[in-house]
Amino acid sequence: MTNIPSKSAFFRFALFFLIVLFTPLCRLSAQTPAGSEDAAFIRTIYTRALTDGRCYSWLEHLTQQVGHRLSGSPGAAKAVEWTKSMLDTLGLDSVWLQPVMVPHWVRGDAEDIRVTGSKQQGSFSLNALALGGSVGTPRAGIRAEVVEVKSWDVLDQLGEAGLRGKIVFYNRPMDATKIRTFEAYGGAVDQRVQGASRAAKYGAVGVLVRSMSLRIDDLPHTGTLRYDSAFTLIPAVAISTRAAEKLSALLQAEGKATVSMKLNCRMLPDVPSYNVIGEIRGAERPHEFLLVGGHLDSWDVGQGAHDDGAGVMQSMDVLRILKRAGYRPRRSVRCVLFMNEENGSRGGLEYAREAQRKNEFHLCAIESDAGGYTPRGFTFEGDQEVFAAFFEKVMGHETLLEPYGLRFSKGGSGADIGPLRGMKGLLSGYSPDSQRYFDIHHTAGDVFSEVNKRELELGAASMAALVYLLDKYGL
Amino acid sequence: MTNIPSKSAFFRFALFFLIVLFTPLCRLSAQTPAGSEDAAFIRTIYTRALTDGRCYSWLEHLTQQVGHRLSGSPGAAKAVEWTKSMLDTLGLDSVWLQPVMVPHWVRGDAEDIRVTGSKQQGSFSLNALALGGSVGTPRAGIRAEVVEVKSWDVLDQLGEAGLRGKIVFYNRPMDATKIRTFEAYGGAVDQRVQGASRAAKYGAVGVLVRSMSLRIDDLPHTGTLRYDSAFTLIPAVAISTRAAEKLSALLQAEGKATVSMKLNCRMLPDVPSYNVIGEIRGAERPHEFLLVGGHLDSWDVGQGAHDDGAGVMQSMDVLRILKRAGYRPRRSVRCVLFMNEENGSRGGLEYAREAQRKNEFHLCAIESDAGGYTPRGFTFEGDQEVFAAFFEKVMGHETLLEPYGLRFSKGGSGADIGPLRGMKGLLSGYSPDSQRYFDIHHTAGDVFSEVNKRELELGAASMAALVYLLDKYGL
Repeated sequence: MTNIPSKSAFFRFALFFLIVLFTPLCRLSAQTPAGSEDAAFIRTIYTRALTDGRCYSWLEHLTQQVGHRLSGSPGAAKAVEWTKSMLDTLGLDSVWLQPVMVPHWVRGDAEDIRVTGSKQQGSFSLNALALGGSVGTPRAGIRAEVVEVKSWDVLDQLGEAGLRGKIVFYNRPMDATKIRTFEAYGGAVDQRVQGASRAAKYGAVGVLVRSMSLRIDDLPHTGTLRYDSAFTLIPAVAISTRAAEKLSALLQAEGKATVSMKLNCRMLPDVPSYNVIGEIRGAERPHEFLLVGGHLDSWDVGQGAHDDGAGVMQSMDVLRILKRAGYRPRRSVRCVLFMNEENGSRGGLEYAREAQRKNEFHLCAIESDAGGYTPRGFTFEGDQEVFAAFFEKVMGHETLLEPYGLRFSKGGSGADIGPLRGMKGLLSGYSPDSQRYFDIHHTAGDVFSEVNKRELELGAASMAALVYLLDKYGL
Repeated sequence: MTNIPSKSAFFRFALFFLIVLFTPLCRLSAQTPAGSEDAAFIRTIYTRALTDGRCYSWLEHLTQQVGHRLSGSPGAAKAVEWTKSMLDTLGLDSVWLQPVMVPHWVRGDAEDIRVTGSKQQGSFSLNALALGGSVGTPRAGIRAEVVEVKSWDVLDQLGEAGLRGKIVFYNRPMDATKIRTFEAYGGAVDQRVQGASRAAKYGAVGVLVRSMSLRIDDLPHTGTLRYDSAFTLIPAVAISTRAAEKLSALLQAEGKATVSMKLNCRMLPDVPSYNVIGEIRGAERPHEFLLVGGHLDSWDVGQGAHDDGAGVMQSMDVLRILKRAGYRPRRSVRCVLFMNEENGSRGGLEYAREAQRKNEFHLCAIESDAGGYTPRGFTFEGDQEVFAAFFEKVMGHETLLEPYGLRFSKGGSGADIGPLRGMKGLLSGYSPDSQRYFDIHHTAGDVFSEVNKRELELGAASMAALVYLLDKYGL
């Protein structure tokens, strides 16, 4: 079955295949692909990760001994201290803390959100979590009629006449027909991020948002909101998808519903914190950088296991795996554990600011912040020239990564590395399987037991392999 | 970034890419690929599966209301009855039961396996499950010295002098460095399947096998053994990986160990059972068949959720999805829920026997028996001519399936459809992500809560899409 087809048939097929799959990615050249030495070293990387990886036991410690770690919390401080102490054991060339001031939001007491005075169901509470950054309610709480809204158009049509004094209930579900769940998330999360201010603009007094999840269950999903300071800051919570379905059905059945909200979350003054950074100094081009990273902070529920304990532990393990495999990189390789991705991205901004000040060329920054599931590939964005140059050489490399189930495609990268955009390098997002991520994202269910050891280790190996290829063949 | 490269550069790259990836798969022709109509219909299939699929709620019923269902058990009988009643509701052209006699093995009381008289640790029990098909011990049990064996060579070297009267402890772990866990399983499962008779040949009186798992935990993994009737039938159990590690360490530390085994599992006479079959009759070629299937039986622990409740529920949903999408297949499409894959494959053998008797050409049989995880692709084996003809046309189709993360490759298919080999058709194995499968395979941990709804539904959609392409473009 190794018949060589006719040139013409071959060409026609190949043309189709390439146009469909790769046209957006690449300019091609006759450059020969990487060789068997590369295949062997990549195999070594995977073997090490799967037999001698540390990311899983590190993650166990981070999640069970440190726990959740919202910026400004004792958990975040402990996470900084512990990860630095771990990096200190790896024999890297340098390990340091990069100071950054971070927001300090606290949830306070458990949220009390209830439907009151339903004709058929009396009063009952809704499983809820305040959105990160939300203001609290007055001590006595607020109570108002609820208006369900499934689109911005409807919100705008209702306007002040329909919304003044009301609680807006955003109930547009994530689109289950998207194959990549991040797309479904991207298509719904505007309600959570913008909902409060867009409702406040019309005089609404509070906001309920259907949780960002494709499941129907009782877990509320928190996450950040962004206030527009032109409007009153009104309190906002996420309610579980089942609570959302119940409330929607009640509105359908009874025509109206009243909800009471009691929150005492609040924003405190900024506090000092840190990005945690480890570096292997490049042997030939020490002033060029390859970065692997994730974010060390998490939400203040669950254990931040997939989001993003997985990514930071993998990033640390990438450096450890390369060291232990005896690899001496040409460029400097850094792992950066960013602080404050969840509610401010201050760590990412500070890192980019300093990189810019020092004019540090980052050939590529890779972020793992999509969960610790089985690798599917990497997405790339960034400077078109570097991009094209890399892809000229990397097609062969992609086939090197094929046995490991990895594909390259164009796409977004990560919130922490995003501020490096415009610095002439590539940005890459590590893309694991996405089906389970939003089941537990930003919830009490994001815990260590949801993480599979091999899946996590394969991710670390995949990132290490990409770093190796970039170091060897990049520009 | 859509520059068309020079022909020569293009050709060189394309040649490399194809040789690396696809040479083993295909003869190529100038046949044009499938079109946008196909893309739209495949999209419809996925949308239906993700918004209106039934496989997940069916699986909930099968696992929670029927439970485990070893051949010959009341659970198996109930599963036959219930799945037939479900198929009867789908408006198929025919639904029937295909009788088949199956083995009837019963586990009896819980296994009692203990290390006795350790100098440092006294006596302690080992988490164990009798291997399916194992004979029991005498009522009083057996007790003998244990010999640890990590390879067949060592077993043969020990021979009768080293093994007569002993209990052989097979402790060769699955190879964690394999990326596809099925490869790791394939490289270790010979110990479970052949271990008893190969030890009995040298006079051993019992067998312990390290569980087929890549995790270190307390779950014993059962599974079938095969006796060679030339030798004494000796009892055999799987012990958990943690028990295996502990026993091995004890042998290391103390030089020897004694184990007692008490089992009262036994084989009863064969009993009648059934394959459950549903069919949509082909509009143009009713006497040609496309088959989707899995196995309805499971082991007698856990709920047989991934193995293979997932596969049978997906197979049923394939027919339902195609019906509801208004698809009228050219060929007859069957779902077959095979009985007795786990300990005899009698259902698969009977199905093939009847297919041969009736001279039913199966263009392709697709089996889902690798868990209900996220789809990664399909493997194919079978008749070279059909294979080549299909792949002549299917390269374009693979790119149609690319947005759904599917790849085609050459490889094994499934135990139930295996007996159709040699009937001039294709055999295909549905390949989901394999990382988690062996954590719970054949254990008490293979339960409904381990199955993710979307992952399961995506599998059903992937199989339906392949059936559609095969029906439209196959031969």
